[in-house]
Formats: sequence, structure tokens, C-alpha cells
Amino acid sequence: MIEVSIFGAAGLTGRELLTWLRHHPSARPVFLTSDQHAGRSVAQVFPELSEYNNLHFSRHEDTPPTGSLVFLATPNQTSMDLAPALLERGHKVIDLSGAFRIPEQPLFERFYGIEHTCFSLVSEAVYGMPELFREQIRNAQFISNPGCYPTGSIIPLHFLKEAGGRIRQVIVDAKSGVSGAGGRTEDAGFAFQNVYENFRAYKVLKHQHTPEIQIYGADGPRFQSPDEAKNTPILVFTPHLLPIYRGILSTIFVEWEESPSSDPATSLKGRSTSEPFVRYLESPEAVELKKTQHTNFVDFSARSMGHITMIVSAIDNLVKGAAGQAIQNMNLMEGLPETEGLLARTEVMAH
Amino acid sequence: MIEVSIFGAAGLTGRELLTWLRHHPSARPVFLTSDQHAGRSVAQVFPELSEYNNLHFSRHEDTPPTGSLVFLATPNQTSMDLAPALLERGHKVIDLSGAFRIPEQPLFERFYGIEHTCFSLVSEAVYGMPELFREQIRNAQFISNPGCYPTGSIIPLHFLKEAGGRIRQVIVDAKSGVSGAGGRTEDAGFAFQNVYENFRAYKVLKHQHTPEIQIYGADGPRFQSPDEAKNTPILVFTPHLLPIYRGILSTIFVEWEESPSSDPATSLKGRSTSEPFVRYLESPEAVELKKTQHTNFVDFSARSMGHITMIVSAIDNLVKGAAGQAIQNMNLMEGLPETEGLLARTEVMAH
Amino acid sequence: MIEVSIFGAAGLTGRELLTWLRHHPSARPVFLTSDQHAGRSVAQVFPELSEYNNLHFSRHEDTPPTGSLVFLATPNQTSMDLAPALLERGHKVIDLSGAFRIPEQPLFERFYGIEHTCFSLVSEAVYGMPELFREQIRNAQFISNPGCYPTGSIIPLHFLKEAGGRIRQVIVDAKSGVSGAGGRTEDAGFAFQNVYENFRAYKVLKHQHTPEIQIYGADGPRFQSPDEAKNTPILVFTPHLLPIYRGILSTIFVEWEESPSSDPATSLKGRSTSEPFVRYLESPEAVELKKTQHTNFVDFSARSMGHITMIVSAIDNLVKGAAGQAIQNMNLMEGLPETEGLLARTEVMAH
Amino acid sequence: MIEVSIFGAAGLTGRELLTWLRHHPSARPVFLTSDQHAGRSVAQVFPELSEYNNLHFSRHEDTPPTGSLVFLATPNQTSMDLAPALLERGHKVIDLSGAFRIPEQPLFERFYGIEHTCFSLVSEAVYGMPELFREQIRNAQFISNPGCYPTGSIIPLHFLKEAGGRIRQVIVDAKSGVSGAGGRTEDAGFAFQNVYENFRAYKVLKHQHTPEIQIYGADGPRFQSPDEAKNTPILVFTPHLLPIYRGILSTIFVEWEESPSSDPATSLKGRSTSEPFVRYLESPEAVELKKTQHTNFVDFSARSMGHITMIVSAIDNLVKGAAGQAIQNMNLMEGLPETEGLLARTEVMAH
Repeated sequence: MIEVSIFGAAGLTGRELLTWLRHHPSARPVFLTSDQHAGRSVAQVFPELSEYNNLHFSRHEDTPPTGSLVFLATPNQTSMDLAPALLERGHKVIDLSGAFRIPEQPLFERFYGIEHTCFSLVSEAVYGMPELFREQIRNAQFISNPGCYPTGSIIPLHFLKEAGGRIRQVIVDAKSGVSGAGGRTEDAGFAFQNVYENFRAYKVLKHQHTPEIQIYGADGPRFQSPDEAKNTPILVFTPHLLPIYRGILSTIFVEWEESPSSDPATSLKGRSTSEPFVRYLESPEAVELKKTQHTNFVDFSARSMGHITMIVSAIDNLVKGAAGQAIQNMNLMEGLPETEGLLARTEVMAH
Repeated sequence: MIEVSIFGAAGLTGRELLTWLRHHPSARPVFLTSDQHAGRSVAQVFPELSEYNNLHFSRHEDTPPTGSLVFLATPNQTSMDLAPALLERGHKVIDLSGAFRIPEQPLFERFYGIEHTCFSLVSEAVYGMPELFREQIRNAQFISNPGCYPTGSIIPLHFLKEAGGRIRQVIVDAKSGVSGAGGRTEDAGFAFQNVYENFRAYKVLKHQHTPEIQIYGADGPRFQSPDEAKNTPILVFTPHLLPIYRGILSTIFVEWEESPSSDPATSLKGRSTSEPFVRYLESPEAVELKKTQHTNFVDFSARSMGHITMIVSAIDNLVKGAAGQAIQNMNLMEGLPETEGLLARTEVMAH
Repeated sequence: MIEVSIFGAAGLTGRELLTWLRHHPSARPVFLTSDQHAGRSVAQVFPELSEYNNLHFSRHEDTPPTGSLVFLATPNQTSMDLAPALLERGHKVIDLSGAFRIPEQPLFERFYGIEHTCFSLVSEAVYGMPELFREQIRNAQFISNPGCYPTGSIIPLHFLKEAGGRIRQVIVDAKSGVSGAGGRTEDAGFAFQNVYENFRAYKVLKHQHTPEIQIYGADGPRFQSPDEAKNTPILVFTPHLLPIYRGILSTIFVEWEESPSSDPATSLKGRSTSEPFVRYLESPEAVELKKTQHTNFVDFSARSMGHITMIVSAIDNLVKGAAGQAIQNMNLMEGLPETEGLLARTEVMAH
Repeated sequence: MIEVSIFGAAGLTGRELLTWLRHHPSARPVFLTSDQHAGRSVAQVFPELSEYNNLHFSRHEDTPPTGSLVFLATPNQTSMDLAPALLERGHKVIDLSGAFRIPEQPLFERFYGIEHTCFSLVSEAVYGMPELFREQIRNAQFISNPGCYPTGSIIPLHFLKEAGGRIRQVIVDAKSGVSGAGGRTEDAGFAFQNVYENFRAYKVLKHQHTPEIQIYGADGPRFQSPDEAKNTPILVFTPHLLPIYRGILSTIFVEWEESPSSDPATSLKGRSTSEPFVRYLESPEAVELKKTQHTNFVDFSARSMGHITMIVSAIDNLVKGAAGQAIQNMNLMEGLPETEGLLARTEVMAH
């Protein structure tokens, strides 16, 4: 039984980790932190998880059990503060923040608006997207778990590149429920009366997930500014806030410089069959949030017209976009079946 | 053209007054206050009302134009602070707060949790429910506009008493959208993720609207505590928070001590026909919020079984439960047709 | 490993059974029926359950594997059609319809509006509420699983009776999300535009769950009509439709003929501690749907004033109100820990 | 007083016309049709409009009063059936269907999927968008009122062209509430449980509003197929279904072939000031549905990066996207102030 420590376990992502780990046959949480709720039990904070009746929240400064695998479900700054010592103490660490995703320090600092205090660790982190880096993840000690918006975009874009051709430009128009948009409950922008029966774009052309999609999805060389990116596919990313709780649907417009040699839809479909959590659906209209909510699947489908290929993709931002993908990474790091705890026991695929 | 001043015009109720006054043929707002938005124009604060492009918010301490009718869409304490001087200066005043609704000072102070600083004015205020006090309103200088929950309950309960019989007990189980539940946008309890896909009771047996319903609906003598109310019909009131924006539906269980002489449904229906804003519907199942939203109507219907008569009533808490009823009172006070500005012009009934 | 057959597995309740059984360590579905989807795989019908990639829907007329435990997640008539032969073939049967809940045939036929075609079986069915009939369930071959509305009301009402006293009248004002209100997707009353930003009562004083609550909650003798019920506690029940998907909150007003000897709240709290799926919360305001959604818990709390005790209770209608309670019954019938598959593995309580 | 006839007055658009006309000082409805509700009063069908207590629905085959201005709030086929005779009888006609918007018959028939039975009338219809064709509308007898999706896109795109430059490609990613997506209440796709907590694209690259946006917004020459459009700006349009009732937000990505000489944002802002119902907001993040709901405004704002200009625009699909724009057209045709009945009386701008 793998012992798991979760820092920031009382946040949205931490709670989702706890929810999924309830059913994981080979892992169980043994240490949780929350500065806000230190001393209280899980049941006091999350009544719907009252079965964790023996677990209490510690403080971030407390020390997790030796040998436990650590999930950092913490803000960017907290992850930078905690990761170095945890790695030093020999823990396997899966960081769910954005702190270690961007391999260019100035790019990180521009988009995240904070200074990076341990940038040398970025090169030690494996980007935790099994569909791209499965083998590296198996052998990693340190995983940087992908962002929720990037996950839904990068997977289909990466698979699309196998169709050949040359991409000129990618526009990602993404729509997220409130749990993916990062609002706090005290933020008036996330008050019921400001979200319900409403819809709006936010952080237009400025969202911190933009370079992550550019690097892993549009496959551009590392760039510092849009102007420097002249010879690489342009990536335009805009998020919107949906009046729902969970799920991200991304509408992706790929413009080809040079048409792919094979049909993009056929290519995407073929590549998806070998992945346990990727489903290619029969049409873009068939892709919807309902089908992915509370699952670790990413669904997508494509349709082309002229020099444009349009992809619609859907994920549950808290699962494949955060906690589920983190557990998938844990399974790989620990030599477990990749789907364990994420699919019905009776149907677990050994990958 | 009646000139109207609105204190607290940037609140939910104030905005609703502005919305309705846009279409009132005989009244127009000339002076608005908002301490938070002083100096800004209506269009800056409420883009959907940008047609009020010449009106700016003043401060509460500023003086409204002589002769203007004043709406106080302010918190209880602010209404107590402002009303005495405004009445002194000769303004007609319609107060939409709860400050002047309860004719017993200890009862007010217990339920509202604040000290009353000008209680002598309460006896000068006419309770502004035209269905009960139409003639008194016509001649009033000072109106205490009813609360939103009480409006939906008192009107059918009051009409029911005309059926005869003697009521033993009234249970009001009321459900309100967020605009009627008084939450502020910074209140975590009103965050999207805490209201959406959720439902809960609040202020159980303690809500400040309880004595108002008891006094005007259950028609009990003035009482200070539940124990003193032994010989009057007991009133039990519980509000709930609906994951919607506007509307209050009240399910009212009337238990008879002595059966009414005439059928309650027939009696309610008959009494309703003479009222411009009361509609008796064919069945309790036909009553729904949709039919009253953005209107000044109160809808209800009753069904009896044994010694119980059950009434379902619906209003728009911002209209008949606040701004609309206030305009109805203004019309009466100013000798205008009662429905002016509240119904289609071509169909206005002269009452 | 217990083999499970589910008739009507493509309905809301059937899908919920499949969802929960994914994680049950000792049971797995082997046979599913759906006349509408016969021949299709689970993954085709429920993409979010695509891990059941080897299971296909059979027809109701097909025969389930010998020895499998059968869940009937079927309409009332279908359950009456199927149950006799299944019991005859030796299956343990848990029926989730209302067909076998009411022990008086005329009462059943009046409230359900259909003729009972195998009424003799009703006396063989154990009412599947472990909090009332745990021992009988352990030894039962045939379980009639309780209705969703009754579950949230009967459990606290039954516990309350242990406080002593004599109940004069019980009013249950219940509010359910659409999944508990039985609407079909083609029913205009359940169209988005008729549910969203709306609220209404339905089947006022006529809902088929009324006698079930009367019999097991208000503990009245069997009665045929309200008039015959004169000497028993009166039960008034009214359901409402919430603009949400899952959850039922019931506001229960208990009027005492004779006051209980012990404090109702204390009594309810004490009785709840020995139950794995019952939680007594510190106040009625603390009870909310969020805390019970996707769990098998029933939460409640009480407050008294004068001769009234008010209880607010919450459940997830699809879980404790249907599939979860059915699995809890299966666990008892099969000698498994009562909470297995319904709580985190690491915390399973052996009851 | 202008007399108004409305065919299809019981549909969503017809009801919205009735709602707005309640407050129009110079026009009033005198004749309404609805085949479904023929013989019933407005109050019976729309309780929230019960003030129209003397108006009853006629049948489509009935004859409207001579001289009345006719709104056709009817399906495409019904508009084609009715328009010729009404024009012949001398009525001014404003058609809110799509039947007369597309000036190329094959293009119409491909996208709408029906045969055009009176195509010669298309050339007599003025496209009723005052921001583009104000003078032609003043003198028109026959108006083809724009579609809801096109309205929110064409206005900013048209204004943008005044910035100069040459557009290479336009991608419109639009999101609509259910009232703009054309679903019927019996359609399972519009059931509460299929819309709520969900989001999806529909009619991807196939929506019938595509050519309308292409013709008036992207300003391409008339084209029959994407391939024939090679030398004109490409228009890609995709609608999505929001889990809300009203409003369309469009995210528009304009790619420049040749950069505009002046700053697009400045140009858009300048052009908007002279329009009574167009508001240029300070940032794309400031544009949201809430600000336009229940108003006739179109709001937008733009931000540029490299060769891309991104515009976010919002309208109320039932108002500026349908009934409000139709009344705006009526005002122009009848020589009334353009904003009459659509803005507060006291602030009406004479345009």
C-alpha cells in the first residue's frame, strides 16, 4: 500500500485527490496539510468525505512520513517553497501547481507574475502528461502536473502533429466552469449573482497557461514574446467562465501552412486507440462536458474545412486536468497499472 | 411629472426601482444616492441602465430636491437615520427597509438585533400593502413598505380570513432566490459554488420577517415571545435559499381550529378578483415563479384536506416584494392610477 | 465476488448502481437489461462509464445468470411483471420501484393509479431501510427498496419517536432536484427553460410517496383515506421541483400532542451515532444538499419551539434515496460489511 | 398610435415583442396569431403578460387589420408563405425569420435545407441592421430582420473595416443561451438534465447563420462553397450552447492580411459613439452577458496582438438579436425616434 501525503489537501484539487483515493486499491492518504484547517479532521472540513474519520490536517511546515509520495496541491509560491526540501528528503513529488511547468525563467515570470526562487529544479521535473512522456514519468522522482486548460488542448494538438503537415496558427477558445477558473469564494466575481445566467472572457491573451500550450501543444521553440515567435506556429489562447461547476471545453482552430498528408480526423482517431484515457468521438457535436465529468477521460473530435481543422475537446478540469492525471502519474511512477483507481476495478487495463 | 429621489439607489432594490421607473409615464428619478458610488453616473454603475446618462449618484448626506417623493432603499439603520429629517422637510417617504414595520419596539429589537432610534415614527407609518390598507395609503405621508417574504404570505392569509373559521396554526415554508436572501457578493455563503446545485434552510425559526407575518397575516395580537402568543394563531416561518436569482415561493399550511363556513379556495378566488395585482390560479401546481418574475403580481392557489388548507403563493421579491409594491404605493399616494408604470400602458386599470 | 444483474440498468437509478458498483470490492455487474438500448454496450450508452467495455444491454425478457443478485431498477409495472419469476428461480431480488412498498392494496392502487398484479408478494418483501429493519434485511430474499422522498423523512421521524411523547401531526415540505422528480427528458415540464430560474410544487397532497411516509415515519396504522386516519398522526406531504440535478431536502414540522420526555435534538443525535450512514449535524442551517451529494449519508438536525419540533434533512436521492441504499441492503443480505463499496476502503466500518 | 400585428406571437420572439411593446408610447399590438393557441387570450398563454387582457390569438390564416405594421415572428417556411400576400395588401412587414436574409438562392437552400418559394422578394427586403443600412430602412416597406448570432458579429466586424487594412480570415466562436439556440421544449437535447452543468458545440461549421455573417460581416463576395471563397476573407463560425436562458457572447478572431492603418480598438470606439445601441467597453474582459440582458445594446471591445485582433461582443439574442432590433427598425420605418420604447422615456435620444 503506497502512502500518500497531500499538501494543500483542503483546496479544490486536494479534495478531489481525497475523493479519488478513497477507491484506490493500492494507495491511501496518511498525511494532509492545510494552514487554514490545521487541527481539524477531514470530516469536519468535508462532510461528504466523512469516512476519512481518522485523518486530521497538519500545517504546511509539518513533515510528511518518510517514504510517502507527496502531492503538492498548493499555490505556485508554496510549491516553490516546499519542493526543494521534499525532494532532498527523498520523496517522490507530484506538483500540481504551475511552478515547474515552464522551462524558460523569463517566460514563467512574465506570465505568472512572480519570481522563480528555485528555477534549477524545473529541469529536473518531468512534465506529467502520460500521453507525451509516459516512459520518462515511470522513472521520474519529480513530476510537474499539467495545467487544466493545457491538458485539454495539448493532447489533441500533439496527436495531430503525427498527421504530418505544418501548422501555421492555433487558436484555442476555452470555456471552463468555476472550479477551473481559480476564483475564491470571497471574490465578488465568483458570487452566484455574477456567474449565474452570465458568461464572459477573462485574462484575454494573457492567461498563464498560454506558454504551456504553446510549448507542448503548438510545439514552438521556446520563445519570450509573441514577436520572437515569428517562425513558430502562433498560439492564441482565451479562457471564458461558464456558469457551471466543473469541466473545460476547448474549441481549437488549427490553420495549416502545409496540409497534412493524412486526414487529421483519421490520424487523431488512430492515435487515440492506444491510450487508456483518450477517446476520439464520432463528431465534434458529440463532445460535451457531461461525458467527461467525474472521469479521467479527455474526449475530442475534429472536422476540417479548407485549410482549417477544428477540434472540440472536453475534460473534467479537476480530474484529467488535475487530480486524476496526478494519480495516473503516481501509478506510472509506482509501477502500478496506469488506470488503477481511475476505472472500475473489474475492467482495469494493465498498460 | 412626479420627481423621485432614491436613497441607496445602487442596491438591488434601488436598481429595481430605476428599472421600473424608466417606463413610468408620470414619475422620473431626479436624485439618487450611494455612498459607495457617489460621483459616478448610473451608466457607469449599471450598464444595462445606461440610458440614465445624465444622472449621477450623490451621497446619503446630500439633500434631495424639495417636493420630491423619497424612496429609502437603504439598510434598517440608515433608514432610521434619514427618515426623521426627510419627513420634517415635508417629503413623502416610502421606506423599503424593515425599520418601521413592527409596531412593538422590543419585538423589533429582538428580531432585528438593533436598537430603534426613532420608534415614535413607527406609529406614523402606514404599512404599505394596498390589498390591506389602500385608503390609509392614499392619505399617508409616510409608508413602511412590506418585506418580501411577508408580502407573499400575508396577502393570501389575510384574504383567507374572510372565509370565516378560526385559524389554529400557520406554517410558512418559504423559498427565495439569492436576491431575496440578502447576501452580499463578498459573502462566501453566496459564492457560486456554494449556492449552485445546492439548497438549504437559513435563520430557521429566527428570521426577522416572522413577526411581520404574524401580525398582518396570522392576525395575532401583538406579542413579545412565542409563549405570550398562546391564545393567537401560532406562526412558524422558515426561509430557504434557492439556486436562482429572483422569486419567492411560499408553501403555507393553515390548520383550522374551527372550519371556515365557506370553501377557502372559493373565498380566496372571489376576494382576488377585485385586486389589480392578485391572481388566483386554478391549482397550487399552476403557481410557479416564472409566472411572476419581472411582474408586480402575487399568484396563489389553495387546496384543502381535512382540517388543513394549503396555499402556494409566488411573487417576484424585487417587484411585488419591494420596488413594484413601492411604486404601487407611490401611485396611490399621488392620486395616479394604481397600476401606472406597472402594467402595459394600453391596459392600465383605473382603480 | 457477488454477481449482480440489473434490470433497467440504463435508467437514472440503474446508471447510479453501475457507477457505485465500479468501486465495490466484492460485487460486480454481469447482466444488464434495457429494452431501449438492448444490444449496445455500456460505453455506448454511458460514455462516462466506458470502462465497462465488455458489458452489453440485454432485453428484459432475457434470463439473468443463475445465482446472481437482481436489482430491479424498473418502473412499477415492470417490477410486478418480473419479480415473481425471479424469486421463483431463487434469485435474491432488490426492487427499487414502488411496487412492493405499500402493504394495503387499495391504498397502493389509489396512490399509484395502477392495479397490483401480484399483491401477495408484498408481504414477502422486507422494507429495505437498514436503520429500521436491519436484522430482517440480513435474512431476506426479497427487498422493497424505499422511495427517495420517504428515506429522507422516515429515518429522522422514526428516530424521533424514541424521544417518547405523542405526535399529533407531521408536515413534510420536500424539495427535490430533477433526478428525484421523475421527469422524462421529452417532458416539456422538465425542459431547461421550464426548470431553470423557476420553482414550483407538484402533486400537492397527492404524491404516491405519501402513504409510505405515513406508514413508516408517522407510524400510523394502515389507513385508506385521510378520514379514516383520524386517530393517527396526520401526515401532510408536498414535493417541490428544484432547479438542480440531485438531492432532496425535507423540512419537517412535527407537532406534538404530548411533549416528548427527552429533548428531541438530544434524542435524535444519540440515536444517530450508531448508524454508519446517518449524521446528526449541529444545526438545521448546517444541513445542505452539498454535504450529501454523491454520498450514501442522510444528514439532519432539529430545533424545537413550543409544541413544534422542526427537522431539516438531506439526502442524495440517487444514492441513499435509491442505488446506495440498495447496495447497503445487498451488503447486509450477503453478509458483507454494511458500508462496503459505499465508503473509502481504508475506513470501512464492520457493522 | 401605430397598430401592430404579430404572426407567431406565442413563440419566444413573439413574446419578447409583446413584452417590449407594453412600454412603447407610440405602438400597440392589435392582432396576434398562434396556430397552437388560437382562441386563447394572451393572459392565458403568458401569465406574466396578463395585462394584455383583451387580446386573443387568431390563426395564421386570419387577416390582420388594414394598415397595421406586421411582424412575422414565424418559422422560415411560414414567413415565405405569408409575406407575399401581406406585402401585396400594403402592409409594412418586418420578417424575423431567416427566409429573406440570404441574397443567393443556392446558398440559402444549402444552409437552410429548404426550398425558397418566393426568392424574388429577397431583393425587395432591406437587411434590417440600422448600424449598416439606416437610411434604406427608413424608406423600406419590407425588412428582413437579422439573425441573433450575426447581429453580435456583424456590427463590430463592419465597424472594424473602417480601420482600413485587409482581413485574411475571421473566426467567430459564439456561445448562446437556450433561447438563442432554437431548441423546442420537447427536444431531449434541451431537457434540463442535458443542458445544466453541461456545455457543447453544435452545427459545427454548418450553422445557417454562417453565410449571413460572411456576407455582411466579413464582406466577402457572394459565394456558394468554401472553395469559391478563396479570394475573400474566410469566415469560420461555430456556435455553442450555454446553460443559461438568454444572451450571446461571441469571441471573434480577426487575422489581418494587411495591418489596418489606425488602431482597431480606437477605430471601433470612435465609430460606436454615434450609435444609440452600440457601446464600446474599455476591455474585452468587461464585456459580459449580464450588461446586455433585457436591453437592446450590443457591447464589444477589442485587443490586438501581432496580426490578430480579438473582439468580444455581447447581445441579448431576444432583444438586439430579434425583437428589440425589430422595434428599432419599426421606429425608423415609422419616422419615430429610433430609441423609442427601447430606452427610458425621459432619456430618449432623437436620432
